[in-house]
Amino acid sequence: MYASDVESLETGGESAPALLPVADNRGLLLGTALYSPYSQIALRLVSHEAIGGRVWLGLLESRLRKAIAGRAALLGENTNACRLVFSEADEIPGLVADRYGDLVILQLLTRGLDSAAVRDACVRVLREELSPAAILERPDPRVRELEGLSAPGLAPLWAKDAESQLTSTVFRLNGLEFFYDANGGQKTGAFLDQRANYLATANWAERLNTTGRALDVCTYQGGFALHLARVCRQVTGIDASRASLEVAEKNLERNRARLKAEVDWVDADAFDLLRDWSDAKESFDTIVLDPPAFAKTKRAVEGALRGYKELNLRALKMIRPGGLLVTCSCSHHVGWSDLEGAVASAAADAHRRVRILERRGAALDHPVVLNLPESEYLKCLVLEVD
Amino acid sequence: MYASDVESLETGGESAPALLPVADNRGLLLGTALYSPYSQIALRLVSHEAIGGRVWLGLLESRLRKAIAGRAALLGENTNACRLVFSEADEIPGLVADRYGDLVILQLLTRGLDSAAVRDACVRVLREELSPAAILERPDPRVRELEGLSAPGLAPLWAKDAESQLTSTVFRLNGLEFFYDANGGQKTGAFLDQRANYLATANWAERLNTTGRALDVCTYQGGFALHLARVCRQVTGIDASRASLEVAEKNLERNRARLKAEVDWVDADAFDLLRDWSDAKESFDTIVLDPPAFAKTKRAVEGALRGYKELNLRALKMIRPGGLLVTCSCSHHVGWSDLEGAVASAAADAHRRVRILERRGAALDHPVVLNLPESEYLKCLVLEVD
Repeated sequence: MYASDVESLETGGESAPALLPVADNRGLLLGTALYSPYSQIALRLVSHEAIGGRVWLGLLESRLRKAIAGRAALLGENTNACRLVFSEADEIPGLVADRYGDLVILQLLTRGLDSAAVRDACVRVLREELSPAAILERPDPRVRELEGLSAPGLAPLWAKDAESQLTSTVFRLNGLEFFYDANGGQKTGAFLDQRANYLATANWAERLNTTGRALDVCTYQGGFALHLARVCRQVTGIDASRASLEVAEKNLERNRARLKAEVDWVDADAFDLLRDWSDAKESFDTIVLDPPAFAKTKRAVEGALRGYKELNLRALKMIRPGGLLVTCSCSHHVGWSDLEGAVASAAADAHRRVRILERRGAALDHPVVLNLPESEYLKCLVLEVD
Repeated sequence: MYASDVESLETGGESAPALLPVADNRGLLLGTALYSPYSQIALRLVSHEAIGGRVWLGLLESRLRKAIAGRAALLGENTNACRLVFSEADEIPGLVADRYGDLVILQLLTRGLDSAAVRDACVRVLREELSPAAILERPDPRVRELEGLSAPGLAPLWAKDAESQLTSTVFRLNGLEFFYDANGGQKTGAFLDQRANYLATANWAERLNTTGRALDVCTYQGGFALHLARVCRQVTGIDASRASLEVAEKNLERNRARLKAEVDWVDADAFDLLRDWSDAKESFDTIVLDPPAFAKTKRAVEGALRGYKELNLRALKMIRPGGLLVTCSCSHHVGWSDLEGAVASAAADAHRRVRILERRGAALDHPVVLNLPESEYLKCLVLEVD
């Protein structure tokens, strides 16, 4: 519930309890919510009943266990990293936990979760269910600011070896190994949500026989690029962040024996480079577009769609007939029809006929709840370009 | 191009040639189109250039070969049936060809294709590419009426053994065997477009461990039901057509050795039965809803959405916590957001939390072209119901 929808607060402001009963304007109880005095999202429902802090802690614990159990089938010999808990989609608003090999990274993004009791419960459950080497808390400075929370650095909540100060590790995705550094990187480090799309893209490239020359635009630390490098002859990853490409290069070195392709990285702005290369008539068998969220707010959608169209237009001009285009948007505010409209418009301008092979979303550890549209953000269109 | 968009015709009516050059209102050539004097879709573009009948026949032949070649990878030991050519999506407006084992069924649905030269070209290409036992023409009476074409019965265009009069066969889908009778059935007989969704549904049921009691609503000839019967303990298929259920029973008998489930068929109206059973608190681990197209026209969408909501509401009431719901719509006019909205509304009424596992479409032999929205009709939502 948005702050603007709240008519009256019996006890508001910083001194208000983190957990509040919520009633509609007839006085009928709607349930119990986490209260964030400084956030635009003032109230986050956690139960349809009136519950106190003790019951809520119990609920939180059982929902944590359920969320973790739901990920067990996704992990195995080839993959030991995933999102363990994803906020509202797992019915714990503001709690995000990711596993990278033997490390667990926790984020507590609402004021109502910012307590020793919640941290203790999380550490206890995570230790019991997963036996990690360490549990770190990595606050998202931007979100914590919106919530009026201070922005501390990385906080080790617990470590098997208390002396170790473990903050980095190597984890496995689909049989490839990636470096993880809790002190660096965007989000909590790697884009776990694209895990299944990495694999699907390489599989489609084999199926369509587009395993010649591949381009991964906004490659970050090389996720799509290295997966494509197992099946393609030549892969280029481009990114505007030199720091990300340095990690990508380390990841490349680590996996060299598993890869088939010659791989190179280009430190450049995607728009500039794609314009130059498409003007120069470069040609690729497979192109992946995985730009950062262009529309962080509703108002930014129009500009974002121009950006998506431009990138897709340039890519479509460079894809050889029968080639593969995998085009993503991770903006919640850009819906499926927006993204498809932008690509269709680019296809019309490029005079290319584009076939939809698959509509993919985030990997299953990032649940999409039909009744909670906010839980959907990642869209991945797999396209064959005639 | 719709008839209402046509400003002038130099030669119209029944005597007009089947192939016409098309220009915009400034006189600039748009291309060459198949002309249908009686259809609301008056012109169907087949080339952006001015071409004559000979060139068009050559194009048709090369597009036919390309379409057939594109299906080769979908066929194999376990599956020997698929759509070979799908009209506009394969750039041959009005031509549909399906393969069922050793039979090929051809539909020529526009006046411009209704010629001996087109039939000869089709027969020649199909024989060369596939060596079938027989090629039959099965006109869709409804579409042919809209096009002002007569509605003949099944026409054998060619048969390896001219005496055989072969009109039925057994074909394989995903390792199961199905009877096909060109003289019976809806569409051209079986729902090939659901082929991959049949398999995916059984796989999801195994993955979610919802392999107890399954319900297949509008089972037709048992497609989803028999695939579920390989993994579930008990499967019920319901359909309002007794004739369809008789084929379903024959299909069941033929596959008995491959199946694990006890299977039964119920001849009933889906709405009535689902209301009765949900009132009676029946419970299922897995439910499939695959109703016929509720909205055949744009105007029918509102009523269709009420229908989808009602069926989904009843299903949601009967699914056990953690159960699987696979809900389909094959109405082109009901878009993804319409269908998802109807299911979300049903979920709210049923107080169920519904998670989207996959958005699936028709199998890959029914191409969806992004720049041709008309080519998308089948939507299949795979949902986990909390």
